[in-house]
Amino acid sequence: MPHIANTPKPPYYAVIFTACKSAQQEGYARTAERMFALAAQQPGYLGHETIGDELGSITISYWESLEAIDSWRDHAQHQEARRLGRERWYEAYAVRICKVQRERRSA
Amino acid sequence: MPHIANTPKPPYYAVIFTACKSAQQEGYARTAERMFALAAQQPGYLGHETIGDELGSITISYWESLEAIDSWRDHAQHQEARRLGRERWYEAYAVRICKVQRERRSA
Repeated sequence: MPHIANTPKPPYYAVIFTACKSAQQEGYARTAERMFALAAQQPGYLGHETIGDELGSITISYWESLEAIDSWRDHAQHQEARRLGRERWYEAYAVRICKVQRERRSA
Repeated sequence: MPHIANTPKPPYYAVIFTACKSAQQEGYARTAERMFALAAQQPGYLGHETIGDELGSITISYWESLEAIDSWRDHAQHQEARRLGRERWYEAYAVRICKVQRERRSA
């Protein structure tokens, strides 16, 4: 169940990460959990939403600026996790970087 | 498992729809399927990615323009489905409208 991130009024930024998992998932869950905790400590982090099953996942993280997104991309531990993802855990993936312009939500 | 949408080079637009489901889900699956099929026929539709479980869902639809997004929002059958979602199927939700600025994906 996705927790709905408590983001501020737009504009802010979103990173949409969509992945199809490979058959090899050893170490994935532990690393994913570590990366969520580490992302939440980064400057400019605003929240995230994620849902997944054995076959794939969609994760959206929200950020104050493109600079914050780039810094997180370049974080050493995140770079190592991304490398493992590319080499082992993901059959295919897409990363989309977006500017959130409008938001509406249930009361 | 999310099918990864075959979107064009940015810029284009994304609608991120994150929802927590209520206990009442009668009619939801059938309507959701109908809405995905109908969205795919709309002008400016570029694809979508979705994943869900009993508790919630994340759906991202991709569009050529903000005008295409507004037209789909105002489509009569979609308006009726959205009303049912608000009244019955969703405990909470957020809709975020974004401009996709960068994209990278696996080969």
